[in-house]
Amino acid sequence: MSASPAADPARRSRRPSGGAESLLEVAVGEFNTRGYDATSMEDLSRAAGITKSSFYHHFTGKEALLRAALERAVDGLFSALDAPAARTGTPTERLRAIVRAQVAVLTAELPYVTLLLRVRGNTETERWALERRRAFDAEVTALVKAAVDAGEVRAGVDPALAAKLLGGLINSIVEWYRPGRPGTDTLPDDVAAAAFVGIIPAR
Amino acid sequence: MSASPAADPARRSRRPSGGAESLLEVAVGEFNTRGYDATSMEDLSRAAGITKSSFYHHFTGKEALLRAALERAVDGLFSALDAPAARTGTPTERLRAIVRAQVAVLTAELPYVTLLLRVRGNTETERWALERRRAFDAEVTALVKAAVDAGEVRAGVDPALAAKLLGGLINSIVEWYRPGRPGTDTLPDDVAAAAFVGIIPAR
Repeated sequence: MSASPAADPARRSRRPSGGAESLLEVAVGEFNTRGYDATSMEDLSRAAGITKSSFYHHFTGKEALLRAALERAVDGLFSALDAPAARTGTPTERLRAIVRAQVAVLTAELPYVTLLLRVRGNTETERWALERRRAFDAEVTALVKAAVDAGEVRAGVDPALAAKLLGGLINSIVEWYRPGRPGTDTLPDDVAAAAFVGIIPAR
Repeated sequence: MSASPAADPARRSRRPSGGAESLLEVAVGEFNTRGYDATSMEDLSRAAGITKSSFYHHFTGKEALLRAALERAVDGLFSALDAPAARTGTPTERLRAIVRAQVAVLTAELPYVTLLLRVRGNTETERWALERRRAFDAEVTALVKAAVDAGEVRAGVDPALAAKLLGGLINSIVEWYRPGRPGTDTLPDDVAAAAFVGIIPAR
């Protein structure tokens, strides 16, 4: 896994098309369609059009593929926290930058983020991914609390509930977003507006 | 299926504990845990502690159980549109009433709504449920458009996107809500506030 930001659109094109990267893409598609538990290495080899032994040349097994795919999604998620705009300014400004970056990562890495959001914790890798999601949510909750404590937010907002609703709003996009959808470029700003002034704000 | 509102908390207690109702509850739990496709009538009989033939006395088969469970969720969803408060007032007032009622139904009927939200359209029953969800979303979209056209909503709000984000915000609650959670009583108002003034509204 590269450490470069997952949302970088130039990233995929730097990867070898016939190598591990394209096998990972095939595997994520199969995991999302069939479910991870129901997908066998036979299924993956057939979908990739290669032999099982060729597949094992790149990945030691199904869980290694899951790990690589989930790492890509988790790296993307945390890149939203680590961007300069997410680390400077008021808590509200930082939250706005995180929301925008998180939406951009979600649309750029849709299958990987979709897989991450479906993880239920049946394997060590899945439990690791759940733990990373919790760590991300804890950072967002702490920032919402900082915004409340700084008096930037209207009274009565519960940081834990706000962080859950914020994550839910953003993550629900995987249910309907498809690459190339009109409005993709403005989606980060549209979702940030929904989060900070409302989905249906009064005039 | 009773025609009474699905959110009525007295409803369950009126049902016979040993009959079709409790079998349905067992089945929905198994469907949500194992996935519908992976659940057999053997699994359901074992989970309910009865014989398969006793099960077939109440339901003709697995898809009949799915249908009954999804009808309960769909009835609840549409009860949110049909409540008096959802049918009178300005478009924004109606939308607020719908959001509140939809959250109340979701918390009261959590396993049934969870099942509905996981439906992918593999059977005739699942396609029926998806069609009902689309019909519900179309009514909400039309109401958001009416609110925009009436000048009640800030410029730049796209009704289709707003309806998707609104549904996503509400439906994401199934990911973390558990019955008896502190704050359940205020959740409908909290989510309505998030939808109309923002999850993290500026003071």
